[in-house]
Amino acid sequence: MVQVNVTLTETIKKLLEEKKFSTLRDILTTMMPYDIAAVFEEMQDEKMPILFRLLPKELAAETFVEMDEETQEFLIHGFSDSELKEVVDELFVDDAVDLIEEMPANVVKRILRSADKDMRKQINELLKYPEDSAGSIMTTEFISLRPDMTAEMAIKRIRRTGVDKETIYTCYVNDENNKLIGITTVKDLLLANDDDVVRDLMEENVISVHTLDDQEKVAQMFSNYDFLALPVVDNEHRTVGIVTIDDAIDVIQEEATEDIEKMAAVLPSDKPYMKTGVLGIYRKRVPWLLILMLSATFTSMIISSFEGVLAQIIVLSSFIPMITGSGGNAGSQASVSVIRALSLGEIEFKSIFKVLWKELRVSILCGLTLGAANFLKLLFFDLRNYGAKPGEAGSPILIALVVSLTLVGTIIMAKIVGSSLPMLAKKVGFDPAVMANPLITTVCDSLSLLIYFAVATSVLPEI
Amino acid sequence: MVQVNVTLTETIKKLLEEKKFSTLRDILTTMMPYDIAAVFEEMQDEKMPILFRLLPKELAAETFVEMDEETQEFLIHGFSDSELKEVVDELFVDDAVDLIEEMPANVVKRILRSADKDMRKQINELLKYPEDSAGSIMTTEFISLRPDMTAEMAIKRIRRTGVDKETIYTCYVNDENNKLIGITTVKDLLLANDDDVVRDLMEENVISVHTLDDQEKVAQMFSNYDFLALPVVDNEHRTVGIVTIDDAIDVIQEEATEDIEKMAAVLPSDKPYMKTGVLGIYRKRVPWLLILMLSATFTSMIISSFEGVLAQIIVLSSFIPMITGSGGNAGSQASVSVIRALSLGEIEFKSIFKVLWKELRVSILCGLTLGAANFLKLLFFDLRNYGAKPGEAGSPILIALVVSLTLVGTIIMAKIVGSSLPMLAKKVGFDPAVMANPLITTVCDSLSLLIYFAVATSVLPEI
Repeated sequence: MVQVNVTLTETIKKLLEEKKFSTLRDILTTMMPYDIAAVFEEMQDEKMPILFRLLPKELAAETFVEMDEETQEFLIHGFSDSELKEVVDELFVDDAVDLIEEMPANVVKRILRSADKDMRKQINELLKYPEDSAGSIMTTEFISLRPDMTAEMAIKRIRRTGVDKETIYTCYVNDENNKLIGITTVKDLLLANDDDVVRDLMEENVISVHTLDDQEKVAQMFSNYDFLALPVVDNEHRTVGIVTIDDAIDVIQEEATEDIEKMAAVLPSDKPYMKTGVLGIYRKRVPWLLILMLSATFTSMIISSFEGVLAQIIVLSSFIPMITGSGGNAGSQASVSVIRALSLGEIEFKSIFKVLWKELRVSILCGLTLGAANFLKLLFFDLRNYGAKPGEAGSPILIALVVSLTLVGTIIMAKIVGSSLPMLAKKVGFDPAVMANPLITTVCDSLSLLIYFAVATSVLPEI
Repeated sequence: MVQVNVTLTETIKKLLEEKKFSTLRDILTTMMPYDIAAVFEEMQDEKMPILFRLLPKELAAETFVEMDEETQEFLIHGFSDSELKEVVDELFVDDAVDLIEEMPANVVKRILRSADKDMRKQINELLKYPEDSAGSIMTTEFISLRPDMTAEMAIKRIRRTGVDKETIYTCYVNDENNKLIGITTVKDLLLANDDDVVRDLMEENVISVHTLDDQEKVAQMFSNYDFLALPVVDNEHRTVGIVTIDDAIDVIQEEATEDIEKMAAVLPSDKPYMKTGVLGIYRKRVPWLLILMLSATFTSMIISSFEGVLAQIIVLSSFIPMITGSGGNAGSQASVSVIRALSLGEIEFKSIFKVLWKELRVSILCGLTLGAANFLKLLFFDLRNYGAKPGEAGSPILIALVVSLTLVGTIIMAKIVGSSLPMLAKKVGFDPAVMANPLITTVCDSLSLLIYFAVATSVLPEI
């Protein structure tokens, strides 16, 4: 939800109470659908259907699509059957499908009853495709041309049939079996001579996606190839729909949010943060918190089994958070770089050795830098008076050496774990983003403690 | 870099050595610019300029734009002045500006010398705008119409001048002072009657951005309003350029990557992961690792000052990683949700109390769940034999109580810190993403230890 200037929504509420309908209509028609939808979302009032009726037909449908599902459901309950039909008639098929997927069963029934037969058929076709597939986000309304049309005929056809199509700028050339053989654009048709033939104007080298392709892959193709729309074909290479760029942008935003949420150990959700209730957020967050808390048992067990070491040189325990923290940070840096590169299609599993070789060199550099800085800091700051008090065993230099060597080993281990786990996850079919921060941090915590105690027992003579 | 099927690049290399130029041309013209660019990037060979010369003029320019800067620079060095001029002439102004911003000074000089006078002027205009501003990503090539034209005249004008414009689908209506007074689309013009006047067809209610607006805000508007292009105006509301949707998508991807990198304490970079050298990655990662390592000094100091407590009940130190880990996870969940909502424009600073109230309730639920689970786990697993060995002071129930109460307090503290810091950062003009994981983890680590020792000293009678 965008922040609407509160006074505007309040003004509209007041005008609605005073039944100043023509003023209201004037206000609404100066606004963009997205912003009108935000006003409705802020209102949450039983007078909403009255306000909605003031919108011109097309603007009403465009606004309706932008609303969140609560507001849509609320409005539909206030609609008469004929009002609902008017809105549904104006919707693009893919928007109608999105609506149906979000509404409860009784509302879906009313919507399907309101749609005309042709639209109902198209909606049912689209509903068959799996969630997050190209088929589920495509629209079946697009401009189809035949290869033997002239540019003039093509433009006439677009002018005649285009008013219902979501985008008319890319036109799809199909043969008599409806197989996709080329594409052309309104730009090319306009800039061509009237009697040029579509077959000569069209680009035969068409990039298309399959109905079952993942929507993330589809969105990535928009960003790579700068398309406005992508044709979707079935197994027989027949054009069954198109994905338009506005839907691709939504997918890009959604997928980025999902990756970010997974990296922070939050279960992904479809709803914006402010629209999700306290219980909803709780359910998204508590599973990973519990899993990670329980997996921290390993770190506790490792520390317990080295209680003897810690009891002798108690200062060692004060560096545990610094060591596990640095390991966690180094690991998540590597994992996030790799996960993002996997998401954007920059790397694939077969590059794993290139990636590991790169991370190994980076981690040696980072490890040595941190180790050296830490050694000096311990000697001249943390441990400068060490040994003066009773119970302070071991020499400051040796302790600083143990901590710094551990740091070097931890950073190298963390970067290798952080970069390889997401790639292995991808290989076995898991989502690499789940392998990010928290899970890797837990693995790195345990391994870095094992390194710490191994180094301590071999370097310190007292133990 | 996308994974090109290695055999294709190798085949092209071999054909190039055998000088099979017409075969090569056939292969290249079936490919998309993005994929041809990937082949060039994989080749990295002195024969690249020969291969590039095989591309038809327009495809050559489109391919050139898709290449990374090393490959571009390499190619330019191999170009004669007239070849360079041919490529530069085909570039859109905004792509030429991107190129100039990435090339070293001597290459820039050659490029500017190759551009014709008019283009050079436009390039210099665009170079004046600050990085990441709307002005810096706009193009100055767009269709400008007058309000008194008929639809027929408008379409003729587009057909006459459109071949050079990056997008012709949205047309901008400007008055005699070049002030933006409306927009219309090719779709509307095509679907109108020939003698309808642009003034009646145009939408007067135009959303525009200012040259100095942030590119992230501009990209967000594309995603909210489903535009294909957005007009950019100066202080006098004159149309000076347009931002097209393909550039907006790139901004959305870049900004998401940047947010993700900042959240993982990596300095953001412009280059893809696989294109960045080991030293480059090192420089992006080591500053935050050092800062975070040094800031862990606080946690060490806190632990040291409670050495007495730990020495008496040494088992307490084994739960430190679990407590700080859970706090860090809970904090980063909250901060990532808030940062993403800020990025997507869902919330603003003024909602801070709503957010805090929400996070408080969520954190109490999460805290109680984790606390209860942890209490049972400690009693029946970790501490089930506690007290049997010498040196194990305190009763298992009291110790489990200390750890679990600490956990509840830590989770509540972490969620409040995690959600408020990014919003405060935004308020004072910092980037909220920098406040994510690592920094918040460090703050939460210190605070959770303080909570731990405060609870321990007040609950355990021995201390």
